[in-house]
Amino acid sequence: MSDARMNGAESLVGTLASGGVAACFANPGTSEMHIVAALDREKRMRCVLGLFEGVVTGAADGYARMAGKPACTLLHLGPGLANGSANLHNASRAHTPIVNIVGQHARGHLHFDTPLKSDIEGIARPYADWLRTSSDSVALGRDAAEAMATARALPGGIATLIVPADVAWGDGGVVAEAPELRAARATDARAVTRAAAMLRSRVPTCLLLSGNALLGSGLAAAGQIVAATGAKLLAPYPFARMGRGGGAPVVERIPYIFEQAAGLLKEFRQMILVGAEIPRSYFAHPVKESVPVAAGCEVFTLASPGEDYASALIALAAELGLREGATDSRGALADSGSRRVERPGTPSGAISIAGLAVAVGAVLPDDAIVVDESMTSGRGLMDATARVGPHDWLANTGGSIGIAMPLAVGAAVACPERRVLCLSADGSGMYTMQALWTMAREGLNVTVVVYANRVYGVLKREFSGLGIGEPGEKALSMFEIGRPDLDWVSLARGMGVPGTRAGSLEEFVTALRAGFTGAGPSLIQVDL
Amino acid sequence: MSDARMNGAESLVGTLASGGVAACFANPGTSEMHIVAALDREKRMRCVLGLFEGVVTGAADGYARMAGKPACTLLHLGPGLANGSANLHNASRAHTPIVNIVGQHARGHLHFDTPLKSDIEGIARPYADWLRTSSDSVALGRDAAEAMATARALPGGIATLIVPADVAWGDGGVVAEAPELRAARATDARAVTRAAAMLRSRVPTCLLLSGNALLGSGLAAAGQIVAATGAKLLAPYPFARMGRGGGAPVVERIPYIFEQAAGLLKEFRQMILVGAEIPRSYFAHPVKESVPVAAGCEVFTLASPGEDYASALIALAAELGLREGATDSRGALADSGSRRVERPGTPSGAISIAGLAVAVGAVLPDDAIVVDESMTSGRGLMDATARVGPHDWLANTGGSIGIAMPLAVGAAVACPERRVLCLSADGSGMYTMQALWTMAREGLNVTVVVYANRVYGVLKREFSGLGIGEPGEKALSMFEIGRPDLDWVSLARGMGVPGTRAGSLEEFVTALRAGFTGAGPSLIQVDL
Repeated sequence: MSDARMNGAESLVGTLASGGVAACFANPGTSEMHIVAALDREKRMRCVLGLFEGVVTGAADGYARMAGKPACTLLHLGPGLANGSANLHNASRAHTPIVNIVGQHARGHLHFDTPLKSDIEGIARPYADWLRTSSDSVALGRDAAEAMATARALPGGIATLIVPADVAWGDGGVVAEAPELRAARATDARAVTRAAAMLRSRVPTCLLLSGNALLGSGLAAAGQIVAATGAKLLAPYPFARMGRGGGAPVVERIPYIFEQAAGLLKEFRQMILVGAEIPRSYFAHPVKESVPVAAGCEVFTLASPGEDYASALIALAAELGLREGATDSRGALADSGSRRVERPGTPSGAISIAGLAVAVGAVLPDDAIVVDESMTSGRGLMDATARVGPHDWLANTGGSIGIAMPLAVGAAVACPERRVLCLSADGSGMYTMQALWTMAREGLNVTVVVYANRVYGVLKREFSGLGIGEPGEKALSMFEIGRPDLDWVSLARGMGVPGTRAGSLEEFVTALRAGFTGAGPSLIQVDL
Repeated sequence: MSDARMNGAESLVGTLASGGVAACFANPGTSEMHIVAALDREKRMRCVLGLFEGVVTGAADGYARMAGKPACTLLHLGPGLANGSANLHNASRAHTPIVNIVGQHARGHLHFDTPLKSDIEGIARPYADWLRTSSDSVALGRDAAEAMATARALPGGIATLIVPADVAWGDGGVVAEAPELRAARATDARAVTRAAAMLRSRVPTCLLLSGNALLGSGLAAAGQIVAATGAKLLAPYPFARMGRGGGAPVVERIPYIFEQAAGLLKEFRQMILVGAEIPRSYFAHPVKESVPVAAGCEVFTLASPGEDYASALIALAAELGLREGATDSRGALADSGSRRVERPGTPSGAISIAGLAVAVGAVLPDDAIVVDESMTSGRGLMDATARVGPHDWLANTGGSIGIAMPLAVGAAVACPERRVLCLSADGSGMYTMQALWTMAREGLNVTVVVYANRVYGVLKREFSGLGIGEPGEKALSMFEIGRPDLDWVSLARGMGVPGTRAGSLEEFVTALRAGFTGAGPSLIQVDL
């Protein structure tokens, strides 16, 4: 594939496309123009523009969570990367594979210390599992192949390749083949034996699942295990993707609020970690505990990052003498599907958090993808949807708000045949609302629900829980995001997305149904 | 000021307020709650919420450019800081003093590696002239005082103080006095002599001004010098603040486009740098030059960062035997003011870039602050306003787009008695439009003009100039930001800002006048 007339940028794009990267989420600048020119001629890659880089990186995250393979991003120098960093933080916590392509000034230009020069490697390092500034047009293809392989190897990570403009425009580019993926680390057979013994003991036990333990064959094996042993399946509050509904095993999410988490966990004397870490509170408190696990509970790690969690669960099921069943991608045994579906009836009356949750359960289409950053307004949502038709659920993994709408963009690009329901708190939504424009441009089938409670609800509650009194006027002004109230219908209209305000549960159900059957995106504002 | 019952957060806030920090631009999270509680009780500091951290840091930049002293920011952990980094890049290039306060998890909590943990020092380092993680509640006040002093010392810089939650809530806080500022480095007397000799030679000479050389007594001295010697005053394309109008010396801005810059500079055989760096193109080109200065032009540095440029110019004027005149803050000699005002007549007819510029010149109120990120739509604006009434002009210093609306927020908070005109390209505006909400909440007298040309104009032009052909469909999809067109009137309404669309120059003039006389913010969309 060597071609004397191929420049570095063309070999970069050709290598990525040959390696299966089929989507580029982008906001390029002048220093990336040769890469844009190469993308212009590459038929195998779809380019999706975001009008802010937090949209770009969050969309790459959502794409990879659903496609099971990385997208690339194209970002403009240090500031473009910095703008995308918060959602790279979230992607990093999700172990999402992403290949970032970041432009750099031509090397001969750097000594001028021009206005846009910055320490790009320094900006990239906090959120890069692999980081390189390419130094040679001939090697750029190989650099891209290595970036892809590193991003894809378990547990999945962020590879950031910085491309000086002269490396992009220089001649001698060579399309490289993707190197073999680093193999998953084998699960320790003794750990499988030990976990099986714990489960056989019939002491109250939970399995805490992460990564592909929450999907497909991994989740199916977990379901067999708990059906046979009486153990319970749990997921951490932050998880990347969970297969649900259509008969898939029900996995309970550990609540964000410490006391609720402790309440859920207090029954367990044994906890088996499958890719997950021991539960702990997001934040320290001056006097409260940080770990909601019951005192005396034995915590045992079956599989940790770098291993294939699904394989570990399948091995555990086998160790327990359970037959491996055929499953679909949500972990439902093929012969157990629709019989177990229980859909709540459509609710009516005044808007309430409980009613909104039931409404989602009542009308969620089969095969939907739910992106959930509903925060304090999302209570009850997962319960109300636990036994409806098959769907996937994506959550915020890193706690940096502003992920939902970008994730929804990426999920919809990855799965054009599926419906996406994007549930966002208003405070979170304001961070990356530019994603609405990308939804409109690309005609993505995303129904966005904005829970407008006009407050950073978590903060208001946390302040009151600190024992330093109730917030005064100035503190409240930093928690409450009304005055003026955000009008999401107008914001959406401004970006080409039709919107409506639902004033009752009936109107909410109607608007959801319209969103799920219409073409392109829509937005529903719910005032709480 | 030691108080056994004072916690770290209270000593932090007390130290900042005592040191003259009167504004805190904020988007706090759980880990910053004790700092919020301390702000709640501090009467000397105004707290201004931004619904995204790019607004917060850009507002701190605008505030300090106009107030001549730093504001502080309050940011939530690594992701909050990362979201604000692009505008810190711009502030860093402007040498704006800013004190960032960034929360961190309590130190005893870090080992849990919770979802929001990240390498905050790593994220801060690329844009910090001073960086510290506070390690002691007793020392936190002193840390804050040192941060303030470092930020304020010439040339001005960014000080980032990371505050672990337990340092904030721990007892024993002590309000510290601000240490003495590091003195400006003295200008070399021989450099003054040499510059004077260059000017006396009557060879075509320009003075390229930056920092406080573009304001007040520095600009006035520069004006005396060119009046006496026939030299010309120039400013780099990126500058932080320029005093203009009302008889202030006219300073020509070097154009962004290389060929235009070279055209302006070709007459000069001598260039004296006063805080500025030698002109160079923002980006390298595969075959074009990077420095638009004429071959054989002698470039001499009179003053460089760390010196007081105004003092250098005053010394130069004295060396040339010129009497120091009384000046106002825009550098106009007190006896030369209104006589030199020349205001263009109000234009009429169809929207054109030239007509829009004239309209601004025709109606700009005295003492206005103009924030200019008009990009390719701003041609002619500075010419049309060069001789109107007194005003200040703030520009994008670092080339990272999305600064205008946040800068306008900060400038309006710093100068509530003045009118702010914020000129934004549509592509730039989309980056940090959340600033509109802060304008509405705080009732800021900002008139926002959005030049809606539906394209990243710089990129489209640069692509075509690379000699790689014209952009194809996919490349154009990354430059053109129409499909769907952004409706800024709806976006503004969504954030509580009244907006209008001007379809002719008459309508534009009417809308500008309404903006300049009304209370609170307004937005004008101009379709190009």
